[in-house]
Amino acid sequence: MIANENPVGASQFPGVPRDEEDDYSFRASSDRREFITAQTGTRLEHVSHHSVDPQTTRGNIENFCGVAQVPMGLAGPMHVRGEHAQGHFYVPMATTEGTLVASYNRGMRLTREAGGIIVTVADDAMQRAPVFVFADAQQAKVFSLWLKTSFDDIRAAAEATTTVGKLRDIEHYAAARFLYLRFNFSTGDAAGQNMCSKATQAACGWILAHSPVPVVRFSLSGNMDTDKKPSHINMLHTRGKRVIAECTVPDALLRKIVGIDAKSLYSRRIMSMTGAFMAGSMNNGAHAANGITATFIATGQDVANVAESCVGMAVGELTEAGDYYFSITLPSLIVASYGGGTGLATQRECLEMMGCYGQGKVRKLAEIIGATVLAGELSLAAAVATGDWVSSHEKYGRNRP
Amino acid sequence: MIANENPVGASQFPGVPRDEEDDYSFRASSDRREFITAQTGTRLEHVSHHSVDPQTTRGNIENFCGVAQVPMGLAGPMHVRGEHAQGHFYVPMATTEGTLVASYNRGMRLTREAGGIIVTVADDAMQRAPVFVFADAQQAKVFSLWLKTSFDDIRAAAEATTTVGKLRDIEHYAAARFLYLRFNFSTGDAAGQNMCSKATQAACGWILAHSPVPVVRFSLSGNMDTDKKPSHINMLHTRGKRVIAECTVPDALLRKIVGIDAKSLYSRRIMSMTGAFMAGSMNNGAHAANGITATFIATGQDVANVAESCVGMAVGELTEAGDYYFSITLPSLIVASYGGGTGLATQRECLEMMGCYGQGKVRKLAEIIGATVLAGELSLAAAVATGDWVSSHEKYGRNRP
Amino acid sequence: MIANENPVGASQFPGVPRDEEDDYSFRASSDRREFITAQTGTRLEHVSHHSVDPQTTRGNIENFCGVAQVPMGLAGPMHVRGEHAQGHFYVPMATTEGTLVASYNRGMRLTREAGGIIVTVADDAMQRAPVFVFADAQQAKVFSLWLKTSFDDIRAAAEATTTVGKLRDIEHYAAARFLYLRFNFSTGDAAGQNMCSKATQAACGWILAHSPVPVVRFSLSGNMDTDKKPSHINMLHTRGKRVIAECTVPDALLRKIVGIDAKSLYSRRIMSMTGAFMAGSMNNGAHAANGITATFIATGQDVANVAESCVGMAVGELTEAGDYYFSITLPSLIVASYGGGTGLATQRECLEMMGCYGQGKVRKLAEIIGATVLAGELSLAAAVATGDWVSSHEKYGRNRP
Amino acid sequence: MIANENPVGASQFPGVPRDEEDDYSFRASSDRREFITAQTGTRLEHVSHHSVDPQTTRGNIENFCGVAQVPMGLAGPMHVRGEHAQGHFYVPMATTEGTLVASYNRGMRLTREAGGIIVTVADDAMQRAPVFVFADAQQAKVFSLWLKTSFDDIRAAAEATTTVGKLRDIEHYAAARFLYLRFNFSTGDAAGQNMCSKATQAACGWILAHSPVPVVRFSLSGNMDTDKKPSHINMLHTRGKRVIAECTVPDALLRKIVGIDAKSLYSRRIMSMTGAFMAGSMNNGAHAANGITATFIATGQDVANVAESCVGMAVGELTEAGDYYFSITLPSLIVASYGGGTGLATQRECLEMMGCYGQGKVRKLAEIIGATVLAGELSLAAAVATGDWVSSHEKYGRNRP
Repeated sequence: MIANENPVGASQFPGVPRDEEDDYSFRASSDRREFITAQTGTRLEHVSHHSVDPQTTRGNIENFCGVAQVPMGLAGPMHVRGEHAQGHFYVPMATTEGTLVASYNRGMRLTREAGGIIVTVADDAMQRAPVFVFADAQQAKVFSLWLKTSFDDIRAAAEATTTVGKLRDIEHYAAARFLYLRFNFSTGDAAGQNMCSKATQAACGWILAHSPVPVVRFSLSGNMDTDKKPSHINMLHTRGKRVIAECTVPDALLRKIVGIDAKSLYSRRIMSMTGAFMAGSMNNGAHAANGITATFIATGQDVANVAESCVGMAVGELTEAGDYYFSITLPSLIVASYGGGTGLATQRECLEMMGCYGQGKVRKLAEIIGATVLAGELSLAAAVATGDWVSSHEKYGRNRP
Repeated sequence: MIANENPVGASQFPGVPRDEEDDYSFRASSDRREFITAQTGTRLEHVSHHSVDPQTTRGNIENFCGVAQVPMGLAGPMHVRGEHAQGHFYVPMATTEGTLVASYNRGMRLTREAGGIIVTVADDAMQRAPVFVFADAQQAKVFSLWLKTSFDDIRAAAEATTTVGKLRDIEHYAAARFLYLRFNFSTGDAAGQNMCSKATQAACGWILAHSPVPVVRFSLSGNMDTDKKPSHINMLHTRGKRVIAECTVPDALLRKIVGIDAKSLYSRRIMSMTGAFMAGSMNNGAHAANGITATFIATGQDVANVAESCVGMAVGELTEAGDYYFSITLPSLIVASYGGGTGLATQRECLEMMGCYGQGKVRKLAEIIGATVLAGELSLAAAVATGDWVSSHEKYGRNRP
Repeated sequence: MIANENPVGASQFPGVPRDEEDDYSFRASSDRREFITAQTGTRLEHVSHHSVDPQTTRGNIENFCGVAQVPMGLAGPMHVRGEHAQGHFYVPMATTEGTLVASYNRGMRLTREAGGIIVTVADDAMQRAPVFVFADAQQAKVFSLWLKTSFDDIRAAAEATTTVGKLRDIEHYAAARFLYLRFNFSTGDAAGQNMCSKATQAACGWILAHSPVPVVRFSLSGNMDTDKKPSHINMLHTRGKRVIAECTVPDALLRKIVGIDAKSLYSRRIMSMTGAFMAGSMNNGAHAANGITATFIATGQDVANVAESCVGMAVGELTEAGDYYFSITLPSLIVASYGGGTGLATQRECLEMMGCYGQGKVRKLAEIIGATVLAGELSLAAAVATGDWVSSHEKYGRNRP
Repeated sequence: MIANENPVGASQFPGVPRDEEDDYSFRASSDRREFITAQTGTRLEHVSHHSVDPQTTRGNIENFCGVAQVPMGLAGPMHVRGEHAQGHFYVPMATTEGTLVASYNRGMRLTREAGGIIVTVADDAMQRAPVFVFADAQQAKVFSLWLKTSFDDIRAAAEATTTVGKLRDIEHYAAARFLYLRFNFSTGDAAGQNMCSKATQAACGWILAHSPVPVVRFSLSGNMDTDKKPSHINMLHTRGKRVIAECTVPDALLRKIVGIDAKSLYSRRIMSMTGAFMAGSMNNGAHAANGITATFIATGQDVANVAESCVGMAVGELTEAGDYYFSITLPSLIVASYGGGTGLATQRECLEMMGCYGQGKVRKLAEIIGATVLAGELSLAAAVATGDWVSSHEKYGRNRP
């Protein structure tokens, strides 16, 4: 029975304690846990158990009270043949879904014996998408044309706010008397959302000051970025990295390792693609979100970006030789090797074990995660096809008989 | 410089060590960390620091090597007026995105002073969606009609595999010579994906044995569930819980707490809705994924379900009195209060502090998460509107000047 | 130079003349053409040339002034193996796009020699989708549950307005404090949109009078029908007829008639499916709208329903024998063999030449149109593959060199 | 009873007769009608009644056998304030749906009294979208980068095939080892699909001859145009004309002419927008397809393009003064004032009465159709709101009591 089930007045429910002097001290953290115990009767013992120094979480969390301990498993070695990641990697995956690590591990073995996974970062851009409102669409059109001629000034205003971000281009989308813009930036090794917000805000300041037509309303976000939301615009135009992972697996190898032939596996793609198309799904593959989420938690990514990162296009083909070409395209995989949560205690260790921490490493990390997803797609597709799917979860999962 | 950058032969890259006797011992975990150090030169010190007993992670992870320590903050109190969650709650949020907890906390204050958040679980169903292939669509039609008359037998076969799951109905979707079915189950306090897989597999066994027309091919998944993928079918037909959170915030309160009036806030909805519609976004709100992900990590949910759970529909209206009615509908929020990762060390504590651990608690948890999302939507929308958005990230975020 | 380019005042621009006594007389029609000549300087000579009696257009048009003469061509014979259409048919197609009839004709030959086209009407339903608004979503939930228990009364109220329409079921979709309903009717041989509107209005009258909770607002259309709009909900749940057309074409026949082998044709499907998926297209086939529009104009359908009817799912597979199975699923093909424009002069002749005019013929017509679409898909796919596409338009099209 | 219901052998079903010497003679047309009578027992009397000279249909139809007579009505005057169409216009609408002309006419009166409809052609482009396949995505990336540096040569190759078409830019979309390109052309006063096909084919010829990496497969269409299909890519990037029509209607005028106040009308938009979003609809307005189809048939457009043209975004706002701003954006309205069916007998008359026939008139026509759609949206929205919708169809429609 907990106290908050019986509200008598708001005064009964004080705010979470803050320490004005140093809110990231062990003391402040401990005070908050004790507060929770007092209010709810629950002791946060495990939450209090951590090696990360609260001081290092400044900028990553407010009202720090401890940590979630998310179990981590190791998969690999995975053979990656990217432009940045080349060689064999062990991949840390943090999850609570039984079978997941085992399944990805199996896919890594399969692709490793097939000669490795080719990975390509086909595009790279982060956005902020403001919207400008005018008296009517004719005014919006004048504005739009003017904007295209003012790109150099706008870029200068944007880039004055950052040493890393570069404004690549601005997309224009007209609807009603609204003009939506999408500012595309390169953001170095950071995911870069805040960098883009700040730079776009500055650019919009310049625009608002110089617009040849009156701007009736303005918002820094018109919901066309589409931040933390899966969307067709990002499927088309990339958000973060556009990663394509590919592998051609010999028929004999499929039979040996996952117990199914190339033709059978392939014949199932048409059912999966048609089902996904009819369902209005944003991904016609199997379970990209699993591999992405587990590596995101492990490596300190902003895990809420799974919303965008889970979008994908799976393509299978039977080669002339009867082998199975398979690929997954992740058009909006958002990753960082620097900034955000990447420097925290366990997160940094996980990046370092793949040689992915710090500057100049973000594309390498993107390639490794893309390859991981591919391994998992092949493994699950085979499991579904052979009927191992349910029995594996019986064996490895939590709900064992 | 790490070893795996210079592959010489596959033999150089041994598999991750396993302990055949007891793979969930501290020893097995330690062996794996040492293996990683030997292979990559990286020491996993922080990863090794945990209070969760490896033995308790069996069924949640394979190749356990430690934990990800994800910083946790506290938001609240949040006033929830659900059918199951009634009262004031403190919400644990695990994230590495600075500003997030502070922003949700602000939204909780706003909605608390507005009288609380009404939350409704409008629907509840988990799916597995097999596909059957026939000689032609006419055969598929015969099969489809037969199936409808055989529902009782099919249900019996499905429910024989579970003490909890109940088969509610089966949706039929015809395309080409494929018939896609969607088995809708209620799954008690578990998320229930594996329960559904097993029950559907048994049901399909019965179907395959009794079908009046030959089944040419069959797959337990035709990609219309759509597991770990955002989709229109789930937006329409619910996956997990369909949660609707609502709050009417007085104009004066908005001005006082978030510095903007109801009318201005409202006028921005039309831009956000139009932008989201044009972008082909699966959510026309602001950032539901943030609140969902942070509470999912804290409470031991399958975080990869953010892929489905992030879908949403935001609706704002100006009341006759000039106040702001706002709601968010999450049609595919997948949560559990039992099974999966909910019983792990920190995860259980976080559920318990909200009175949400164990049987009979899943809808209460769904309501609290739905309310949390609502609080965050209002706070961010106001921040964007007033221009606080960028400055807040400057203040709280990692990339401080 | 026409008069209306120089507006001086609204008084200059009188309304189109109407004859209060008999607005469907030849005189009234003639008066309107003369009015146009007076106002714009344009003589409507060809428009005046028609054999349809203006009196028979009452209920199909207002301000009748003549006709559009749309060129009509004949394709066929097409071999249809439907449940209702069985045998060989000549298909009238009204269009102004050169090459179209020739291309469909070629596809009809191909499928005829392949043994004919199997067609199935997999589902059949027409909708009206009202929306009810409540104080909050909890009230909406109470209403939704009550509605399910009141189905018999609601059906009685709906069916009291029509001798043909039958209310099959009501779908419920909850969002915010709105409850959207979709009333699914069978409508005999009419397309039935107006029949559904009237019956649903009556049903909603009953509902509003008996609702156990107050209805705050109500609209007869909440935009979930989705009338005259392509949508995922109709792709999933059928609007009008769900028609599936299929044909297995021998490899040798493909080579002989369209100059391409089965394997090459098949390998292109994966590119078309992936492109359509990425583009967010509502049809992953080639050009279903062409065949649908041309037969719709010829047979007096409501041509604006091309908006819904053009949606489709194309599926190709290579058989064990190396032949090409191909199908197209049209989930929202809206057709009538009775009512609307079907009884008009040329329109009725076109229906009669296929044995499709009048009662009991609508599914036969749906099957013929579905088969026509399939023939066109195969022909165009082959033309694109062999490079004949551009050269054919050079030969048959308007823009000849 | 018609002959083709009793197939005995394919030989029984001869092909439609053709006249090798002159297939567009009255004789050839007559022969075909007699053939149909002989085969099916149906006489095509009305079909034979036309004033269009069969010879003039060459390039628009094959196997010509007469015409469909589609009833035409007149709506207007409509006050248009476009960039190209300025003044009052009478609009010819060919349809068989009773009420349609009356409803549009009412909307034209409403907007005329409100001061006219502002229309803007915000963008203008026609596409062909080929796809290139490579050994892997890394090769595709090399190709993509090379292509960007070769734009001038590619444009030269494309434009060598046409005196009108201009290649504006090429969009790149990468997925798997496929690279999809979208060639955007301006096409003068023609709709231009065939012009684009021919030019893109020539451009691809140059590309294939010069590519620095081997092209494994190639198709002139990768289904990303998306020709004759509604899609998000065209909603975002325009196909044909991107037309925005707007009108601010005074509250008093709404009450007077359509019997509803601005606020009530506005409050319904949120329900329509939310319903359309949840349904996965490609248009969140009311019935754009109606006005588009009726004007398309009248003016000789390729009516199958209703598939793309029906897509739309409706936006309503309440002004400070309490009036109703409403707009509709049609992102893929495909029209021509020259070529195709525009020069045929009745079609040309209809274009001429609006001053829209021939060169330099296509944007004017696009604006008039856009304004027409807007008028219809307002009229139907008001009819639904006031309950006139069903009663109007009772009064004007075919299914009168």
